[in-house]
Amino acid sequence: MTNETDEYYMGLALALAKKGRGHVAPNPMVGAVIVKDGHIIGQGYHEQYGQGHAEVNAFRSASEDVTGATIYVTLEPCSHYGKTPPCADLIIEKKVKRVVVGALDPNPLVAGRGIQKIADAGIEVTTGVLADESRQLNEVFMKFITTKQPFVVLKTAMSLDGKIATATGESQWISGEASRKQVHAERGYLTGILVGINTVLKDNPRLTARLPNSKNPTRIVVDSSLRIPFDRHILQDQDEAPTIIVTTDKADPDKIASLTERGIRVIVVASYQARVDLQAAMAELGALNIDSILLEGGAELNYAALAAGIVDKVQFYIAPKLIGGASAPTPVAGAGIAHLADALPITNMRTQMIGEDIFVEGYIKREVV
Amino acid sequence: MTNETDEYYMGLALALAKKGRGHVAPNPMVGAVIVKDGHIIGQGYHEQYGQGHAEVNAFRSASEDVTGATIYVTLEPCSHYGKTPPCADLIIEKKVKRVVVGALDPNPLVAGRGIQKIADAGIEVTTGVLADESRQLNEVFMKFITTKQPFVVLKTAMSLDGKIATATGESQWISGEASRKQVHAERGYLTGILVGINTVLKDNPRLTARLPNSKNPTRIVVDSSLRIPFDRHILQDQDEAPTIIVTTDKADPDKIASLTERGIRVIVVASYQARVDLQAAMAELGALNIDSILLEGGAELNYAALAAGIVDKVQFYIAPKLIGGASAPTPVAGAGIAHLADALPITNMRTQMIGEDIFVEGYIKREVV
Repeated sequence: MTNETDEYYMGLALALAKKGRGHVAPNPMVGAVIVKDGHIIGQGYHEQYGQGHAEVNAFRSASEDVTGATIYVTLEPCSHYGKTPPCADLIIEKKVKRVVVGALDPNPLVAGRGIQKIADAGIEVTTGVLADESRQLNEVFMKFITTKQPFVVLKTAMSLDGKIATATGESQWISGEASRKQVHAERGYLTGILVGINTVLKDNPRLTARLPNSKNPTRIVVDSSLRIPFDRHILQDQDEAPTIIVTTDKADPDKIASLTERGIRVIVVASYQARVDLQAAMAELGALNIDSILLEGGAELNYAALAAGIVDKVQFYIAPKLIGGASAPTPVAGAGIAHLADALPITNMRTQMIGEDIFVEGYIKREVV
Repeated sequence: MTNETDEYYMGLALALAKKGRGHVAPNPMVGAVIVKDGHIIGQGYHEQYGQGHAEVNAFRSASEDVTGATIYVTLEPCSHYGKTPPCADLIIEKKVKRVVVGALDPNPLVAGRGIQKIADAGIEVTTGVLADESRQLNEVFMKFITTKQPFVVLKTAMSLDGKIATATGESQWISGEASRKQVHAERGYLTGILVGINTVLKDNPRLTARLPNSKNPTRIVVDSSLRIPFDRHILQDQDEAPTIIVTTDKADPDKIASLTERGIRVIVVASYQARVDLQAAMAELGALNIDSILLEGGAELNYAALAAGIVDKVQFYIAPKLIGGASAPTPVAGAGIAHLADALPITNMRTQMIGEDIFVEGYIKREVV
């Protein structure tokens, strides 16, 4: 069997895996395809958190006896008891002849033990087929399972000349309709959405995904002095999505109590330069199982997040317009870096058109894991 | 004969035309291919300003008798006496059977008269084959021949977060090597390069193309008060490329005389808001046969040029790095626009990777002519 054949079926399994996006967090997206005598006889993916894994669904869908078949799985089958029994055991029990795996599972509870168990049972195992694609698809899971910190995506929309608003503060809307629709989709894919108190004071956003069949993310506000007024949208509609406020010991305890009574979770973390310590905030949010955050900050919060080293990925929507203005705000303000040699490098930067806008995506500091 | 066949040969003629880039200004780039019995029997392009037109070179190269052949020309053959006799007459004389034309010549001296003359001689004429491609290739010529104003390309290099320098002023180099090489190539393609006096004071650039077999552009400095010090590179090496300084009546007449003695051309134009009136400057530069200008301005000159409406095209090199800084300069400063509805739209924006950078190109105000 050629590598091209393996990559072909793994490609199908990856396409299946993606269908779980937005529904399986904090689990990874996984797809599986079962092939026998050159025909696909079963396929499945992890559809919903807490429900069947990809392998289980693929076996369940099989149109004939799977004995002697090859199963393609985008991520190493699990070897531990979680919400479901170990998939490695199921694969052995099904008497397949060969298992082809995309990426190994970085979960310390799996980490090579899944394929070891399968190989020990005398089943042929091939690993690393489209492994990069599988890892990138599950970049959120890969970070969260190993660090317990959320994967943070900094998102901004700017004019081609780098302005996120006019000098007078107008910012709605810089990007086009297709871009805004994609942002709403991203909100549905990630578990949390983070803004600064200034955005809440100025724009009073709802921060919901506003797309059919899409989950709303948990709204998270960084509010060092707990200035948030009770009348804000995100404090009203807790049935649409939960809201978490991250503050410091500058917060009024009575206000914390009032907010808590209304079902708002208030987290008090350490201060850093008189503001919320964002690293401490990420640790707290990770402990609440928030595995991923879309950071829709203003220029100051963006700079603070980058300086704190909590950002993993950036997404820039660049609109085909020029705004100008020496005092118009840009995506990243703060002190900035003094020397070009210290500029924060973006790796694996890629670009594509979305409607009339340019969409740019890249990673901070490190190669795609 | 199918349209695909016509487009195929016109595509070849366009590829030939491009070989004249940087050598034929202010003439257009033109290519020609002669086809007989399904074989290419001749081809040529306008290679050098003042020398043979594409049609002349194509006929000269013909490997057999061109009687009854089809000639593909990217731009309408000329019908007037310029530096060479009319190509329309040559085509009639050569007894070709058919002429396929890309774009019509907007030159008021031609403007449809070329094809009219050929058709009147009983030769079959097809027009508009890959006309958009031909017009875009000659966008400089199309503007200059109809307005006598230079085609202005605003070029800038910025970080992904829209900074052209750090808060401390470091700007060399933001973009990568591949981008800087392309900028030098662009300098060789265009007739003039324009900077503000602040760039000359701060960076003391040479503004030459620095590529083998490349022409250096005329260096143009906008210097309202004629502050330029005599020791600047661009005032020393007039053998490499000429320098023009555009100033106002605030300039010291003695300094104008000294500069003129050294072979520097100083143009005094009207003021607009106490600075050089850029529209007046463009009219003067056009009169000097400067058909195209690469504007490598700082944030203030860029804004003034955009506000004056002299910019036709923008080229942004976006480097994969974040600089940050509320006070770091951005590509377009000045007052800027107050309302998003008044933002200057970029049309036909396209993007591609150049090395590690993103290159973005687009047009101001109007569709590609």
